[in-house]
Amino acid sequence: MKLASFRLGGAEHFGAVVGSGLVDLGGRLRQFTTLRDAIAADATALLRDTAERASPDHALADVELTIPITTPEKIWCIGVNYADRNAEYKDNSAPQSYPSLFCRTPSSFVGHGVPLERPKVSSQLDYEGEIVMVIGKGGRHIPRESALGHIFGLTLCNEGSVRDWLHHAKFNVTQGKNFDRSGAIGPWIVTSDALDPAQPLELTTRVNGEVRQHDSTRRLMFPFDYLIAYLSTFATLKPGDMIVTGTPTGAGVRFDPPKWLIPGDIVEVEVPGIGTLRNGVTDEA
Amino acid sequence: MKLASFRLGGAEHFGAVVGSGLVDLGGRLRQFTTLRDAIAADATALLRDTAERASPDHALADVELTIPITTPEKIWCIGVNYADRNAEYKDNSAPQSYPSLFCRTPSSFVGHGVPLERPKVSSQLDYEGEIVMVIGKGGRHIPRESALGHIFGLTLCNEGSVRDWLHHAKFNVTQGKNFDRSGAIGPWIVTSDALDPAQPLELTTRVNGEVRQHDSTRRLMFPFDYLIAYLSTFATLKPGDMIVTGTPTGAGVRFDPPKWLIPGDIVEVEVPGIGTLRNGVTDEA
Repeated sequence: MKLASFRLGGAEHFGAVVGSGLVDLGGRLRQFTTLRDAIAADATALLRDTAERASPDHALADVELTIPITTPEKIWCIGVNYADRNAEYKDNSAPQSYPSLFCRTPSSFVGHGVPLERPKVSSQLDYEGEIVMVIGKGGRHIPRESALGHIFGLTLCNEGSVRDWLHHAKFNVTQGKNFDRSGAIGPWIVTSDALDPAQPLELTTRVNGEVRQHDSTRRLMFPFDYLIAYLSTFATLKPGDMIVTGTPTGAGVRFDPPKWLIPGDIVEVEVPGIGTLRNGVTDEA
Repeated sequence: MKLASFRLGGAEHFGAVVGSGLVDLGGRLRQFTTLRDAIAADATALLRDTAERASPDHALADVELTIPITTPEKIWCIGVNYADRNAEYKDNSAPQSYPSLFCRTPSSFVGHGVPLERPKVSSQLDYEGEIVMVIGKGGRHIPRESALGHIFGLTLCNEGSVRDWLHHAKFNVTQGKNFDRSGAIGPWIVTSDALDPAQPLELTTRVNGEVRQHDSTRRLMFPFDYLIAYLSTFATLKPGDMIVTGTPTGAGVRFDPPKWLIPGDIVEVEVPGIGTLRNGVTDEA
């Protein structure tokens, strides 16, 4: 099952993607205001049954997709997670013992099909293709052995970054990772019953059709089950929390000269079995 | 006016603190579910009128105070902001051009009077007394000249940190700053009409009555108006967002040997005109 959140007529909705259409589930299941509510209620079976009995209410093309969970409590992002990424920094540092971790706000992301925004104060908008775990059942001190059972589903992220602002501070990359509408999450969540999160996934990022990043989750230094166990050591994971699992080598900053995103570019993040997250680029108004 | 959020009989409420009592405002103004809703509706005058016409419904001692804004979109935290703090790191680095910035989740904080939690995985729980700006009117690209007008009010924070987990990663301090219930915010928000955020404030942190931190906002490297202008350069500030403005020298890690918090300790963060945030310490269950 593919679940998406969307905006139509100024209101926020969620539903199931069926072919090129959308079944409005929020309208049929009034007990849930958001997809996050439905996940927290462990309502996967109810969502599936409702979607199977209905015909699509809207064409996907007629709605604006938003990030799939519009108000998650947490969006954890993992830095430097694919093999070779540490070497790419060329700072001769040892491989890390633990993941690098930062937070992003929901407002720093748009949904599928909505342009990323290049800010007024920088020309260094860059892409980072990533896979996102969406937490179903929450918990703390989750053992690695049972961690994958806490994944509600997977979605994609363009973890768009403003490079010069990543280095404003002595520690932490917060600023450059949190520009309004600088990244994207979507297009939808593929639930764990449709795509087993234990299987290896192939991630590709393209800019204007040119492959810039390509790698497999087989090469993650900190794989999905480890991340859930590690994060839940210090913070209780909640339904709808998103864990953005890191990007392969090949972001625009790594080219000489760097290949920053400019208005008119099209960025695609694709994982077979999940889909393709596609966004244009526009200048901040 | 002093505004607080609290829990009573399993439900969440908000109200005005009057002497040692609480006027339940949420119960009288049903259009607002949370204090954040009331701030977003620019309802300060209505809150004040309602509080002035009522008698307290509860004794403060009879309720559990929560963090004043229970579901802020953002909790921005500023690192290394009081003069001398950079020197305290003893890494010979130049003073920074921009603030160091990280995020905390609401779940990493308890309210006034609720014990901080020392986690199972570390003995290095430490205090950091700080002043918090709560945003009233939101905005992006807010000029420094008008920035203080965006402050709804001020509250206090014990920005409790788990020191060894601050250094898990190559970049970023996220882990050590986001342990469940490791910090506190409160006891209440003092609105800007009652305490002008432009006036200098004296911040004191005590552990078991012993003064550990004492400094004045006169010595902030990045003062309140600068922070609002800077943060809003990249992210739209929203009503109820909290900006935790940094801690003076004297955290427990700076002593030799370090003075970590242990169960039974009492930590107080005090600013005349705002109040005193007081929390015990307990072990994670």
